[in-house]
Amino acid sequence: MTQEQTAAPVVRITDVAALAGVSIGTASKALNDTGQLREETRARVREAAQKLGFMMDARGRALSSGRSYTVGMITTDSFGRFSIPVMLGAEDVLSAGQIAVLMCDTRDDAVREQHYLRSLASRRVDGIIVTGRSSDPRPPVSAGMPVVYAYTPSTDPDDVSISLDDGRGAELLADHLLSTGRRRVAYVAGPLHHQAAVVRARAAADRLGDALVEAPLHGDWSERWGRQAVDLLLRRSPDLDGIACGSDQIARGVCDRLRELGKAVPTDIAVTGFDDWNVMALASRPPLTTVNLRLEELGRLAGQALLELISGGAPESRAIEPTLVIRESTIGS
Amino acid sequence: MTQEQTAAPVVRITDVAALAGVSIGTASKALNDTGQLREETRARVREAAQKLGFMMDARGRALSSGRSYTVGMITTDSFGRFSIPVMLGAEDVLSAGQIAVLMCDTRDDAVREQHYLRSLASRRVDGIIVTGRSSDPRPPVSAGMPVVYAYTPSTDPDDVSISLDDGRGAELLADHLLSTGRRRVAYVAGPLHHQAAVVRARAAADRLGDALVEAPLHGDWSERWGRQAVDLLLRRSPDLDGIACGSDQIARGVCDRLRELGKAVPTDIAVTGFDDWNVMALASRPPLTTVNLRLEELGRLAGQALLELISGGAPESRAIEPTLVIRESTIGS
Repeated sequence: MTQEQTAAPVVRITDVAALAGVSIGTASKALNDTGQLREETRARVREAAQKLGFMMDARGRALSSGRSYTVGMITTDSFGRFSIPVMLGAEDVLSAGQIAVLMCDTRDDAVREQHYLRSLASRRVDGIIVTGRSSDPRPPVSAGMPVVYAYTPSTDPDDVSISLDDGRGAELLADHLLSTGRRRVAYVAGPLHHQAAVVRARAAADRLGDALVEAPLHGDWSERWGRQAVDLLLRRSPDLDGIACGSDQIARGVCDRLRELGKAVPTDIAVTGFDDWNVMALASRPPLTTVNLRLEELGRLAGQALLELISGGAPESRAIEPTLVIRESTIGS
Repeated sequence: MTQEQTAAPVVRITDVAALAGVSIGTASKALNDTGQLREETRARVREAAQKLGFMMDARGRALSSGRSYTVGMITTDSFGRFSIPVMLGAEDVLSAGQIAVLMCDTRDDAVREQHYLRSLASRRVDGIIVTGRSSDPRPPVSAGMPVVYAYTPSTDPDDVSISLDDGRGAELLADHLLSTGRRRVAYVAGPLHHQAAVVRARAAADRLGDALVEAPLHGDWSERWGRQAVDLLLRRSPDLDGIACGSDQIARGVCDRLRELGKAVPTDIAVTGFDDWNVMALASRPPLTTVNLRLEELGRLAGQALLELISGGAPESRAIEPTLVIRESTIGS
């Protein structure tokens, strides 16, 4: 609003992308000779860059310019359990580069999101990180500037998304249950309408193979569902020796109900969670073996990717692997 | 970095709109005597304009100023459970005034805080909101610009702090226990080194009077402490009929342990929490009677106070009263 005028018009990669009629990611790839693009596209971008006098410096980075050294962080996640660690990681990287982060909470409201996008454009931010409460993909924002999606990936494969490899997390937990000798395992999943719940359940089921006693049960992300699922499962399979869960919250409910029924965890039945959310994973009795989502690391990588994109680089999308955290719910003390 | 220098604090129509809690369009209509508005709205806008010393120029346009329309939000709370709702409330008010919020997470690190203060000064933000994870007072920041403390008050009484009235929350819960006929009540508090824990315990004890069976027990903010406290208390006072707790987390542990010992909540013993943190208060068996901290409202008031301060007003410090939320842990279904 009150930004100082720049002395001379400085060309940014966004201008090149706009003139060539391609996304910023595509423009970056074309200028950096990376990625898979049609030669015709690459040529069109180079032509646009030349026409506008866009310059890359010796290290292959765009020359600095009328940048505001500010980026926007758009989140749909009012509660913050997922987006806050992502934001902290991103901010860590960005603030080390003297870049300030404008916080924009859209509260899952499309009108609010549009308001913020306009506001960020008028403030001439250098780029935007988009995050949210779910690891399910979302439609891309239309911003006309570099955008990186963190945790919540874009549905457009041309966008740069740093996401979570939910399937890999589920595999790690399944492997752990198998390696500790469990051979009659059930899976208690989150809701079918959450892609992450389905991906985790399917990956675990594939990995468990014959050790899976029945198809994954889908319910909601709650302790109550975990407790209910135990009653369902033990009626049909009283000889269960493991229960893998789609979240720590579900797993905590599972542990509570097993204790109430006189089943020892992990001696009788091993239990695994997903998320490594301390309030659930550590407060559970016993504490939960789970996977840590490495959300801060994910945020750092998103911050780095955005810096690269702003500088005219062509960062690749990637999915972060969660890491296994072993606690008493699978290994007796 | 590239903000224009300010000459003198100039009030804009956005300030008037934000203070009056209306859109800029509405504020403009009210001040220009155009459009169809309720007289009450028009009066509120005029009052806001007068309060802020708002001036229209000859063409009916607000005078522009060197303001950056950006404020900094400094928080020490990496986890975000307390600071996030405060921030959302503040942002709600500020963004209605077209003011963007720069997020600065200091992670309880004084060096990082200094870094952010310098960065915010160099960006010529209009003001700063300071918040944190604790309602205990903190030393003031040295910023040379308008600052409002939200949730975490400043130790300097000359600063503007919008804080939480912890004692009042404890009184509401004590009154509720007494009004439901409880006469042998114990208090399970948070740690002695947290002022909020001490204030809550003292206020509850004063209010409970003869109904308090022994001095409040201090432990940590955990479910485990709640479970341990039940064992301690029932050994000494097997005829307890109420347990008031310093937090929902403690109260959840208390409910779990009482259930394990075959005591019915609330029939045998009523239990109260503090915070209205859904993950604890609703997941508890039974769900907890507690007080809601109204953190978003607190944030909104902090945002309004900052706008007033920026516009040269003199907002007062105040403490928000939590509100009682009654659930099954005190009133049987």
